Amino acid sequence: MANFPEPIENLLEQFIRLPGIGRRGAERLVTHLLNTDADQADRLAGALARLKTDIRPCTRCGNWAESELCRICDDPRRDAARICVVENPVDLYAFESSGAFDGVYHVLGGTLSPLRGITPDELNIDGLERRARTGDVTEVIIATSPTVEGDATAHYLAQILAQAGVEVARIGMGLPLGSSLGYADAGTLKLALEGRRKI
Amino acid sequence: MANFPEPIENLLEQFIRLPGIGRRGAERLVTHLLNTDADQADRLAGALARLKTDIRPCTRCGNWAESELCRICDDPRRDAARICVVENPVDLYAFESSGAFDGVYHVLGGTLSPLRGITPDELNIDGLERRARTGDVTEVIIATSPTVEGDATAHYLAQILAQAGVEVARIGMGLPLGSSLGYADAGTLKLALEGRRKI
Repeated sequence: MANFPEPIENLLEQFIRLPGIGRRGAERLVTHLLNTDADQADRLAGALARLKTDIRPCTRCGNWAESELCRICDDPRRDAARICVVENPVDLYAFESSGAFDGVYHVLGGTLSPLRGITPDELNIDGLERRARTGDVTEVIIATSPTVEGDATAHYLAQILAQAGVEVARIGMGLPLGSSLGYADAGTLKLALEGRRKI
Repeated sequence: MANFPEPIENLLEQFIRLPGIGRRGAERLVTHLLNTDADQADRLAGALARLKTDIRPCTRCGNWAESELCRICDDPRRDAARICVVENPVDLYAFESSGAFDGVYHVLGGTLSPLRGITPDELNIDGLERRARTGDVTEVIIATSPTVEGDATAHYLAQILAQAGVEVARIGMGLPLGSSLGYADAGTLKLALEGRRKI
């Protein structure tokens, strides 16, 4: 493989470290940046440099925050008695976009995964337990993904939280809105049957 | 759609401007950068900042260069009498990786595209014509992509270069190495028949 000039190889290497970007994709990005106006690479560089200085984890919930508390924990109109537990801030903002939840959140930072060496210590679980034990919290809704690891994490959290005297729930699972029953996979149909509710 | 903190929205916006990165992909990149060690975003920012200061177009061929001439134009062992015309530096490096060409290159910077407003003036065609007229060049091999736009560009260049007194060739087209004839598309089979050679 012939090498590009060193500054380009260096940038390619940095792009390839990112998830979902391979050698070809990185070459396409560099070509684009060198073909377009001079400012685009600088603007991206500036935005990246600000990331670590301007964003920190919320000390209460672990969400992305610009000061000690994130905008949600800092909002007195939110119902602090209900905590929705999510894997990461992107999942949190998905709930926020839905407008369906007015409680507060707790961001785990991932799911338990013995295979990838992610033990409870790697996740923001201690903080959740402390919050649940304050007496101000009545319900914890566990909204980890409906995957093997997400379910295992949910069960682990349910065991821990049971001792904290709070009500623990798992988000509903089943057919997504607007989906076609005939195209649903067997696992989802099983979840939908198990999650049936009286009408 | 709920907004992330401003520094994150800003970075997302910069990522989304890049080709092949959508909102979801950008969110994944930001999550990754905030979850991994602090240096990765900084290293990427640094590599981006160096791009425009350390890389310029080669004054002779238009390839990415660190000084006035690119490494290939600056290499006396290359056969300067044969020029291979490519759309962009990534295509040039694909030829270099093959080791199949020891001449020099000329980078057009794209293909002619009336629909996208790319006229001959937008491409590095004047420079090619000047190089062809110096008398040092005997053959120009046009290696634009085998697409409608690449072919149209090749025909346009052939007309211009015919007046410069150099031999003009188009790269061979047909079945790629190791491919299966039964799976080849009709257009490629047509090209392969037209490009047949006596054995």
